[in-house]
Amino acid sequence: MHVAIVGGTGAFGTALAKRLTEAGHEVVIGSRELERAAAVAAEVGAAGATNVDAVKKADLVVLATKAEAALDTARELRIALASKPVVSVASELRFTSGGVFPTTSAASLAERIQAELDAPVVAGLHSLAASTLAAAEPPDEDALVCGDDQEAKELALELATALVSGRALDAGPLASARALEGLTAVIVNLNKRYRGHAGIRVTGLP
Amino acid sequence: MHVAIVGGTGAFGTALAKRLTEAGHEVVIGSRELERAAAVAAEVGAAGATNVDAVKKADLVVLATKAEAALDTARELRIALASKPVVSVASELRFTSGGVFPTTSAASLAERIQAELDAPVVAGLHSLAASTLAAAEPPDEDALVCGDDQEAKELALELATALVSGRALDAGPLASARALEGLTAVIVNLNKRYRGHAGIRVTGLP
Repeated sequence: MHVAIVGGTGAFGTALAKRLTEAGHEVVIGSRELERAAAVAAEVGAAGATNVDAVKKADLVVLATKAEAALDTARELRIALASKPVVSVASELRFTSGGVFPTTSAASLAERIQAELDAPVVAGLHSLAASTLAAAEPPDEDALVCGDDQEAKELALELATALVSGRALDAGPLASARALEGLTAVIVNLNKRYRGHAGIRVTGLP
Repeated sequence: MHVAIVGGTGAFGTALAKRLTEAGHEVVIGSRELERAAAVAAEVGAAGATNVDAVKKADLVVLATKAEAALDTARELRIALASKPVVSVASELRFTSGGVFPTTSAASLAERIQAELDAPVVAGLHSLAASTLAAAEPPDEDALVCGDDQEAKELALELATALVSGRALDAGPLASARALEGLTAVIVNLNKRYRGHAGIRVTGLP
């Protein structure tokens, strides 16, 4: 499928683009700056474009900006996105001396992004790290995706399948994003405590 | 260790008591009604008592009421608990036609319980189901525990070790409870979608 990775010049977006390109998807990395998008995209065999241009041909749009830029970027792209499905992958984290904290907002970032867009928003991939995505082999993890729009969720699950050696799993409605985004804080805390690269596997499913 | 399971006459509290008793811990199941506590406790080889009496000798207190009773029960036991460590295991869920939703409160239930108590609160075991805990073999899962008080968290991790075939893992500060409680919603949604008994394994840790 055609995948646009908006704000995709960071470590996560780049690793995602590389993995998806290798899996046979057509990937465009978007950035506010065309030159930067083109330079990063060239390194991983993807195309580069401005964010607005990147979403034009996309079947699925991954919003891969930093968490603090996600809402503004969604607002800026509302018209360009129209009804194209969007995957929100960011988590708001607070780094403190007592560990990494999840957001204090009652609603998940993905639900707040949904409130800005006409497009259906799904959330997922929060437990995947840029470092494990960029490794030679797909990581020994499952990928969790949630959303209220079934068609959008199926596309995101198809995309997620290319990223892990485990399964792409449907974690329920968009409200589950509260848990999935919070998992990023848990994973960062686990990584600090045990000096690892934590991921999630779901056991007990047929 | 001496473990009190407050409000522990439900399926989860009973399965927990059975597993902990088998592992050699001294377990008291607490209830508002002494007769009910005694009857349920007898079935699993534990002692039974009122909630207030149950916590008296405990090294660690598991708050195993239903989520909607957790705050009231914590308030009622504040004096009896004094500074004894408490483990919050409940999650507020909303069952809708579109799936199971996590709470809409900005703060986790565990953090709201902490605000009612002088005792240190840790949160954990949210991804363990009564049905898998009650099975003959420990479930193929890890158990996640979070909290701000290191001593209380170590006790809870020791308790958790007896419950799963995987590891008991320190998931960071009490703020991580937002994610761990939300995971219960994710797990219920996964169980509905895939007709399984989902649990969590963390990969990538040494």
